[in-house]
Amino acid sequence: MKVVAIAGVGLIGASFGLALRRAGFTGEILGVSSERSIEAARRVGAIDYGITIEDAARRADLIFLSRPIFGIIETLAHLGPIARKGTLITDAGSTKVTIETAARESLQHATFVGGHPMAGKEARGAEAADAALFEGRPWIFTSEPAHPVFPEFREWIRRIGAREKLLDAATHDRMVAWASHLPQLASTALAAVLAHENPEAAAVAGPGLIDMTRLAMSSWDLWSDILGTNGPEVSAALDAYIAKLESLRSELDRNFEDGAKFARALRNRE
Amino acid sequence: MKVVAIAGVGLIGASFGLALRRAGFTGEILGVSSERSIEAARRVGAIDYGITIEDAARRADLIFLSRPIFGIIETLAHLGPIARKGTLITDAGSTKVTIETAARESLQHATFVGGHPMAGKEARGAEAADAALFEGRPWIFTSEPAHPVFPEFREWIRRIGAREKLLDAATHDRMVAWASHLPQLASTALAAVLAHENPEAAAVAGPGLIDMTRLAMSSWDLWSDILGTNGPEVSAALDAYIAKLESLRSELDRNFEDGAKFARALRNRE
Repeated sequence: MKVVAIAGVGLIGASFGLALRRAGFTGEILGVSSERSIEAARRVGAIDYGITIEDAARRADLIFLSRPIFGIIETLAHLGPIARKGTLITDAGSTKVTIETAARESLQHATFVGGHPMAGKEARGAEAADAALFEGRPWIFTSEPAHPVFPEFREWIRRIGAREKLLDAATHDRMVAWASHLPQLASTALAAVLAHENPEAAAVAGPGLIDMTRLAMSSWDLWSDILGTNGPEVSAALDAYIAKLESLRSELDRNFEDGAKFARALRNRE
Repeated sequence: MKVVAIAGVGLIGASFGLALRRAGFTGEILGVSSERSIEAARRVGAIDYGITIEDAARRADLIFLSRPIFGIIETLAHLGPIARKGTLITDAGSTKVTIETAARESLQHATFVGGHPMAGKEARGAEAADAALFEGRPWIFTSEPAHPVFPEFREWIRRIGAREKLLDAATHDRMVAWASHLPQLASTALAAVLAHENPEAAAVAGPGLIDMTRLAMSSWDLWSDILGTNGPEVSAALDAYIAKLESLRSELDRNFEDGAKFARALRNRE
């Protein structure tokens, strides 16, 4: 693995470049993005320079797609006929079934492995990039392809401090519907109901409401793709949450205790 | 204000003692609690020594009730015939209408002012006490009684760094139903629905779920009193939240944007 191309050098893409560099990667790290993003990523040291997606298809051993989901799907269609057999393509999309299907249908020569680094922060763009963003965080692969670049890529994932995990795409999408998309909607709905029905309650807001509305600051640009590609799973989780809220009054003590146990266990995992 | 008695020297009571001391209060700070709690509060320097509630009624200029809500009501009943005219009684209860009614019905000579320091953390007990707990946090008074101790007490609230705020008890209870009790239930329900229906999703949990389930670790001991004394307001907020979640699918983009705006504004208040 000598040449890595990162398509989409926002927070995740640029952090991946920085993390690779810090972990000792000495090959080339190239960016595919708008001129402005390339300049920002170059300035923070996340990439060496910008190239076109066609050049990336010709030269890269690994192409890392870190754009919003429908952007990844578009890039896969573009790479379909031109990406070489020797190139491994991976991604950082937050849902995996739709992307994996698109890769299977698009790529004629190259191999794809779905990926999901479960890391992030509110700030966006290369300016917010952080070489330590993936440290201690799960990095999910949806398969273990028998491609010569894969073992080396996986080794770099370990070196940048991420905790590698194998989950097939459908299981991944169901799990993130509960662990990530549902919390997002719970936070958005909480902030929205306060905004629409009782904004003056902000005057007595404490750290609890601050925590509970952090996710609500997420941008709709990103989330429209995520929710749009995981609809049925998210709907099922949302229905279960609504049912739980409706039944909360009748068994409040048991829900408090079971919820507390779950929340504590979540923090005590290695 | 020479003698302060703190009835209930858990996190809030002991932090109040520490904060007073650090702000330069040189009078006596006495604790009313179980032997074990008194010992813990004395050890961290939050109180000078323990006394009985009868002694507190005889000697204190200010009695600060920082027990769970129904404990405060019980103590008010106890203090009713014995607390002197010169004593100002205040509290730290999370709901105010029920407590204020109890004070009005119980106290024969002393004056009561409802209080709510909006501060806290997960850890409990005097061991977790923190002189800086109230810094920058709202401290709500439900009235401004014409009692000689009140101006001085209020001055100490400012000196310990809290932001004093006047809100009548009913308005307070409605506002905290939205800004505090609803977020608590949203967090509890989220943790409980994961616990009961998809605990294995914890394997892909990120910082979002961690934030969203912090409140769920709160103890039922405290919350049964809070929810039990603010039922109708909490129910109304919960109903509105459920309705918002149900309608979320149809206007997801608008709710995302309005929620994000509210969440950002919450962080930009002075």
